[in-house]
Amino acid sequence: MKAIAVQPGAGVPEIVERPVPEPAPGEALVRICRVGVDGTDYEVIEGSHGGVPAGDDRLVLGHEAVGVVEDANGTGLEEGQYVVPTVRRPPAGVETNDYFERGEPDMAPEGEYVERGIVGAHGFMAEYITSPADCLVPIPAELAAWGFLVEPISITEKALEHAYATRSAFDWQPESALVLGNGSLGLLTVAMFTETLGYERVYCLGRRDRPDPSIDIIERLGATYIDSRETPLAEIPDAYEPMDLVYEATGYAKHAFESVDALAPNGVAALLGVPGDWSFEIDGGRLHRELVLHNKAIVGSVNSNRGHFEAAIDTLAALPEGVLEAIVTGVYGLEEVDLAFPKATASVPAGHGATAAPNDDTPIKTAVEFTDI
Amino acid sequence: MKAIAVQPGAGVPEIVERPVPEPAPGEALVRICRVGVDGTDYEVIEGSHGGVPAGDDRLVLGHEAVGVVEDANGTGLEEGQYVVPTVRRPPAGVETNDYFERGEPDMAPEGEYVERGIVGAHGFMAEYITSPADCLVPIPAELAAWGFLVEPISITEKALEHAYATRSAFDWQPESALVLGNGSLGLLTVAMFTETLGYERVYCLGRRDRPDPSIDIIERLGATYIDSRETPLAEIPDAYEPMDLVYEATGYAKHAFESVDALAPNGVAALLGVPGDWSFEIDGGRLHRELVLHNKAIVGSVNSNRGHFEAAIDTLAALPEGVLEAIVTGVYGLEEVDLAFPKATASVPAGHGATAAPNDDTPIKTAVEFTDI
Repeated sequence: MKAIAVQPGAGVPEIVERPVPEPAPGEALVRICRVGVDGTDYEVIEGSHGGVPAGDDRLVLGHEAVGVVEDANGTGLEEGQYVVPTVRRPPAGVETNDYFERGEPDMAPEGEYVERGIVGAHGFMAEYITSPADCLVPIPAELAAWGFLVEPISITEKALEHAYATRSAFDWQPESALVLGNGSLGLLTVAMFTETLGYERVYCLGRRDRPDPSIDIIERLGATYIDSRETPLAEIPDAYEPMDLVYEATGYAKHAFESVDALAPNGVAALLGVPGDWSFEIDGGRLHRELVLHNKAIVGSVNSNRGHFEAAIDTLAALPEGVLEAIVTGVYGLEEVDLAFPKATASVPAGHGATAAPNDDTPIKTAVEFTDI
Repeated sequence: MKAIAVQPGAGVPEIVERPVPEPAPGEALVRICRVGVDGTDYEVIEGSHGGVPAGDDRLVLGHEAVGVVEDANGTGLEEGQYVVPTVRRPPAGVETNDYFERGEPDMAPEGEYVERGIVGAHGFMAEYITSPADCLVPIPAELAAWGFLVEPISITEKALEHAYATRSAFDWQPESALVLGNGSLGLLTVAMFTETLGYERVYCLGRRDRPDPSIDIIERLGATYIDSRETPLAEIPDAYEPMDLVYEATGYAKHAFESVDALAPNGVAALLGVPGDWSFEIDGGRLHRELVLHNKAIVGSVNSNRGHFEAAIDTLAALPEGVLEAIVTGVYGLEEVDLAFPKATASVPAGHGATAAPNDDTPIKTAVEFTDI
């Protein structure tokens, strides 16, 4: 079968031949339909993140997938059922551990998991995969075409579950939310705030000039685009309003700290970016005082578990199809796989500057299609 | 009647004559027994925090009190009942607001409250006070002698309630806790971790040489004293272990950020200090990444509400009396009030250096006694 793999650091993915995998007991064989491409894939391609499984020189990419059960293998799944695979698995040679036993692999620390398509385990960009049945989340056929968005939405489901948890000791009624970053995850999150979470006022910070398709999506959702070059994060409370919730999806480390200033009293900042080392000066006294005197919280969040995937499928069903169509700018077959990785050969600014996307026609969200849905 | 008041910035409190207050409808008249002295009182005395009520030139001090109902005034309280008053009240001229209506004045932002004995309202260091009955929390007579510790314990009850809330979206089973600061609040919190919260391993960071009574208390509780001059906060995970919970009670702003490094995966840092402005460099990229990849949280917490006072009374009942006796180094009548404010005339290091207490015989916790219990 064909798969899309990468030698970490090679800069571009390649199509490779691999044997169709055999499901072990408890596993099903899944025929892959579509697999999304995201920033983590580029980090793996560039070699700045992730790693190949022991004994292999290439990693099969892909962690945002939807497929169809080809051989249920006695697992109780139904053949023909569309499914979305979760990403984390126990480390090689380990059957399970406390985190997986509890259904919370997203809370496992480094060393206690591998991530399919990212680190230590092959991903989903292949014609077939096998997976333990309990890592395959059924999705209705009518949503299957968008099923590769379930994993990124699940990331936000988890981050917001944790952000809300931080505010659960009192009566919190958030009305304003600010999303930092207008990439595909930021845009999906803006859509969740406006369409499913009932926020009255939603803002999205980016660094793009108009006209720009991501700004169009933000405004179509009734949200407000803020250009960080005109209004830096810390000035947003004065220029717009203090925010009950800040969702950071830029990987720009100063945002983690400036978010404290952007928050309203009793607000929470959810951090999702994974920046490299970067030292800079902050007014730590003021930020510390502000966190305390206004009961603010910061919560970091990574990955997601099966419950978040299930919530994400409900969310996906509630998002307007027109918005999904605008966010997904291209789904490409193997014969034009280069189009699915438009940044793979370009020189991408690494590290801090994740919001400094150039003002061009860079697609927002792409996917690879292995089988028609 | 006699009261202890201060002209903010005067550097020392003074005994003043005030009329015995008359309870308004819904208020009770309380005869004050004991009032604790804490760091906030010194900030008010120095003039770095707080403020007098409009129309007055002095503020009656005191926010950690226990008294006895002298005139229930038809409120439903019983005369002779010991009570602890809560601290926040609606601003002058305002009957109530959403925060008070919900029983969550501790979540009110600046401008939506006054604090008795701290900012905008006279405190409890007087022979008599009046208070709305619902701001008077009954305490059993056998605990009344320690009742002035209920307010500081309630501060920790709230901070820990919020810290636990941040970890409520998953199965969190904390075993290790680190308290930053070995002042009276830090010591009470160490006692809560070891005596009522079931932590297996508790540490307390300070800057004092042995022999020192606060170190004795820490060790008597089965906790481990860590000298920050030998083991800075960020090195504690290697030297001891990463911490599930860090509780900051130093007001030392670097601690707010270094706590992230001291935390175990999925840990939470509760911040309580109120530092002044202070700019310094951090590796913000690493801290941001660490928060995200290990699902860590930071939560600021200020003040407490009636529910936290009630929880604090239960906690107080569970703490060993010997520990309370060791923490409370002196209870003084008005005739020796100077002894209750041992730092009031000394030159106190302001701002960042709150942990840099000199290695001397400075009392740990003092109180003023107005009436025998």
